[in-house]
Amino acid sequence: MNFGILGTGVVGRTLAAKLIELDHSVVLGTRDPAKTILKSELDGMGNPPIRVWLEKNSKAKLGSFTEAAVHGEIIINATNGVGSLNALQIAGEMNLNNKILMDISNPLDLTNGMPPSLFISNTDSLGEQIQRAFPNVLVVKTLNTMNAYLMVNPRLLANGDHSVFVSGNDTAAKAAVSKLLQSFGWEDIIDLGDITTARGPEMYLPLWLRTWGVLQIPMFQIKVVR
Amino acid sequence: MNFGILGTGVVGRTLAAKLIELDHSVVLGTRDPAKTILKSELDGMGNPPIRVWLEKNSKAKLGSFTEAAVHGEIIINATNGVGSLNALQIAGEMNLNNKILMDISNPLDLTNGMPPSLFISNTDSLGEQIQRAFPNVLVVKTLNTMNAYLMVNPRLLANGDHSVFVSGNDTAAKAAVSKLLQSFGWEDIIDLGDITTARGPEMYLPLWLRTWGVLQIPMFQIKVVR
Repeated sequence: MNFGILGTGVVGRTLAAKLIELDHSVVLGTRDPAKTILKSELDGMGNPPIRVWLEKNSKAKLGSFTEAAVHGEIIINATNGVGSLNALQIAGEMNLNNKILMDISNPLDLTNGMPPSLFISNTDSLGEQIQRAFPNVLVVKTLNTMNAYLMVNPRLLANGDHSVFVSGNDTAAKAAVSKLLQSFGWEDIIDLGDITTARGPEMYLPLWLRTWGVLQIPMFQIKVVR
Repeated sequence: MNFGILGTGVVGRTLAAKLIELDHSVVLGTRDPAKTILKSELDGMGNPPIRVWLEKNSKAKLGSFTEAAVHGEIIINATNGVGSLNALQIAGEMNLNNKILMDISNPLDLTNGMPPSLFISNTDSLGEQIQRAFPNVLVVKTLNTMNAYLMVNPRLLANGDHSVFVSGNDTAAKAAVSKLLQSFGWEDIIDLGDITTARGPEMYLPLWLRTWGVLQIPMFQIKVVR
């Protein structure tokens, strides 16, 4: 299947590598591909520039947000939450309409340092904002509750014995996303309900951030024990 | 040990029964004991009036918020979040000072129906508000992330293989609360840090509420898998 991933950070790259491993076709979209490809410094997290990553992952293609959206049958929003709506607008509503948009972003507000607060929460969520802005896109919020390496390889931890959530208004879209998650190794996929339920997984982030602070490494996850 | 529990709802009663089972002495505090003892109707959740409960739990004593606070070496705030600060003010700062206050309340805003939103979140928490209002009280936020029956008997589920959090500024107070939690059967007690980390467990509530909506019963919990 063809995927368009918006965002070339660690999350976008990790998803791209996994999708390619599973024989999907991927275009990674960025705001300005000509500028992005010229970057030679490490990013803020110490990751190599995208050029180095593309040499090692030669089946992945770099393009604009629009090219990624046009290419994808499923689109993945892996941009920073603060830039997500703008990235999707640049990608183009007509290139997104009637497609599944897996929204894995978080509304993190880093303006006051670490740990971040959320710039939307409680009575709204970023998932809902995206759905309202693009009413004909099939938004499914998922995977935002963990580290990128666990997203695509849940069996890295406790042989995959932990939980992932999906929220969205379209049942068929959630089923398609769940099938993709299963292909990553996910077994406990909890459908929380419509897109308003994205408030739950997004508001979990402050607990995730503080647990990360205690454990010192992000290689942890929650299991809904029942 | 002597405990004062503020709040006579299911949470307060369940904690009281467990503490008495463990040979502690408990006064359950309420706003107006004379009025509370006369109640004969079931509460909104179908629970019997406190009079019936007290007949079955004859070692528990009912008193005012003040009497509960005076009695307790450890105080437990089991009031509705919206009334917590007022209940503590009535209990009396001088009766709380230098004591441990286990705050297990949640800032649930039920004014717009179910599921509730939070009336404080993101850049503040109810735990922090209580600590600021009572600077000489040793506030420890804990147990607010689950159903009351699991609070006092974690082994009801997966033989206790799930996690509870503590947040607070005083290390000795957190150690004392952790010891009490261990006496309830808790094994995985995660110290998140100072009282500002209470934002994490409080903001988890929206995910808890929506998971409850899916599972239909509140007998579930999260385990931090690492």
